Amino acid sequence: MSFLLELVENEIKRFKDSFQFEEKKLDGIIDIASSDMAKYIDQTLLKPYATVEEIEDFVTKSIKYDFYSLCVPPCYVGTVKSLLPSDSKTKVITVVGFPHGNVTMEMKANETRLAISDGAQEIDMVINIGFLKSGDYEYVFEDIKSVTEAAQGIPVKVIIETCYLSNAEKVAACVLAKEAGADFVKTSTGFGTSGATVYDVSLMKFVVGNKMGVKAAGGIRTFEDALKMISAGANRIGTSKGIEILEVVN
Amino acid sequence: MSFLLELVENEIKRFKDSFQFEEKKLDGIIDIASSDMAKYIDQTLLKPYATVEEIEDFVTKSIKYDFYSLCVPPCYVGTVKSLLPSDSKTKVITVVGFPHGNVTMEMKANETRLAISDGAQEIDMVINIGFLKSGDYEYVFEDIKSVTEAAQGIPVKVIIETCYLSNAEKVAACVLAKEAGADFVKTSTGFGTSGATVYDVSLMKFVVGNKMGVKAAGGIRTFEDALKMISAGANRIGTSKGIEILEVVN
Repeated sequence: MSFLLELVENEIKRFKDSFQFEEKKLDGIIDIASSDMAKYIDQTLLKPYATVEEIEDFVTKSIKYDFYSLCVPPCYVGTVKSLLPSDSKTKVITVVGFPHGNVTMEMKANETRLAISDGAQEIDMVINIGFLKSGDYEYVFEDIKSVTEAAQGIPVKVIIETCYLSNAEKVAACVLAKEAGADFVKTSTGFGTSGATVYDVSLMKFVVGNKMGVKAAGGIRTFEDALKMISAGANRIGTSKGIEILEVVN
Repeated sequence: MSFLLELVENEIKRFKDSFQFEEKKLDGIIDIASSDMAKYIDQTLLKPYATVEEIEDFVTKSIKYDFYSLCVPPCYVGTVKSLLPSDSKTKVITVVGFPHGNVTMEMKANETRLAISDGAQEIDMVINIGFLKSGDYEYVFEDIKSVTEAAQGIPVKVIIETCYLSNAEKVAACVLAKEAGADFVKTSTGFGTSGATVYDVSLMKFVVGNKMGVKAAGGIRTFEDALKMISAGANRIGTSKGIEILEVVN
C-alpha cells in the first residue's frame, strides 16, 4: 500500500472512530467585535461578469473595513493591487483552477506563478475533484504540490468543494492538502451546488488540526453565519457580504 | 475613435437596422440523417466531478457514433487521446479559461499551448465577460488573440456566454472574435444561467457570416433541439446527450 493511501485510510478510520459533531450554541461561546471580525474575512467578488467599474467600486467601498483580504479573479489582481493604498494591510487574493479544478497541474502551477507576479498575496486553488473521487491520491497530492511549490511561500488554500464529496472524500482531501504543504483547506468555491456548512468545517478542523487553517466559504451572508463557522473551527471566512456583515454590528 | 470601436458600432447599427428574427418551422426545411447529425456534434463531458472511470466509459460508449469530437476538461485530454483508436476521425477538444473566462490572457495562452501539447485538436475558450461588459474591446480582442496565436492553426472557438450579455454585447463579442482570427463563436459554457437559444444562434450567424462557424451549446438535449439550432445557422452542436440524440433516429 502506498504511503498516501495508508495515511488517508488511517485518517478515515480515526474520523469514523472518534469524530463527534455537535453544533455549539452561540450565546456566550464566542464574542467577536466587528473590528476583529474584519480580520477573518476574505471579502470576495468572483462572479464571472464583474466589470472593471464593479471591481473599482468593490475596492473603494471595502478599503475602510480593513478586511483580511480582497479576493478577485486573476484578471483583476493588478487592478485591485493598484487601487489599494500602499500602506494597506489588506491582502490581494486570487483563485487558481477556478471553479472546476480540472485543468492540468502544469496549468495550475503556471496560473499560480502568473498570479503572484501580478501581485496576488494568497492563492485559493481548487482540488482536482474527479481524480479525488477516482481515489487517485498520488495525482491529487502532486496537483496540490504543483501549486504550493509554484507559490514559493505565498499561502495556499485548497478548495475541496465539499458539495460533491462524501465524508471519506472530504477527509482524504484534507489529508492530501496537509501532506502537500498547503496552509488552509477551504470548503467551497461558491459556484457548486451548495456552500459551507458547520458540519464540514468541524470535519475539516478535526482532520487538519491546529497547524493548518480552515476557510469557510459559500453562502455565508450574515454575522451569525460567520460566527457559527468560527465557533466550528474556521480561521477565515470567504464572503461577498463582508460589508453587510460588519455593518450589522456597527 | 479606435478601429475596433468603430467596427463594433457599425455592426451594432447594421444589426439594429436589418436583423430580422423568425423561428423557422422545421418540417421540410432540414432533413438530417443520423449519420450526418453525428458530424455536427461535439459530444461533451465537462462536469467538474467526472471521475477517470466516467471519462473512460464516456469514450468507450461514444466511439462507435463517429462524433465530430469528444470535448473534455484539460486534465482528461491525454486520457481521451489514448483511448481513441489511432485511425479515429473523432477529434479531442478541450476548454480554456473555463467556465468563467476571467483568468489573464497570459494564462489562457499558456493553457492553450499545454492543452495542444497534451493532444487537444480544437480549443473552446471563454471570452473575458467582465471586460466585454466594460466596453474594453481592445482587451477582449487581445485576450482572444492570445489564444488564436498560441493555438498556431488549431481551430479556436470563442464562447461568448450569451446568458450574461445584451444583444449589443453579443454583437460586439462576435465582431471581436472574428477580428481576432477565431474560427467559431459559441453560445454558452453550459454552466451559466441559461444555454443556447435559436435567437442567439441566428444573431451570431448574422454577425459572423459564412466564413466563421457558430456552435450552439448548453441545454441541447434532443434531436429536435439540435435541428432547430442547425436550421438557425449552427455549424456545430455541443451536448452531453449526443448518444441519446442519435439513438432516437436509429
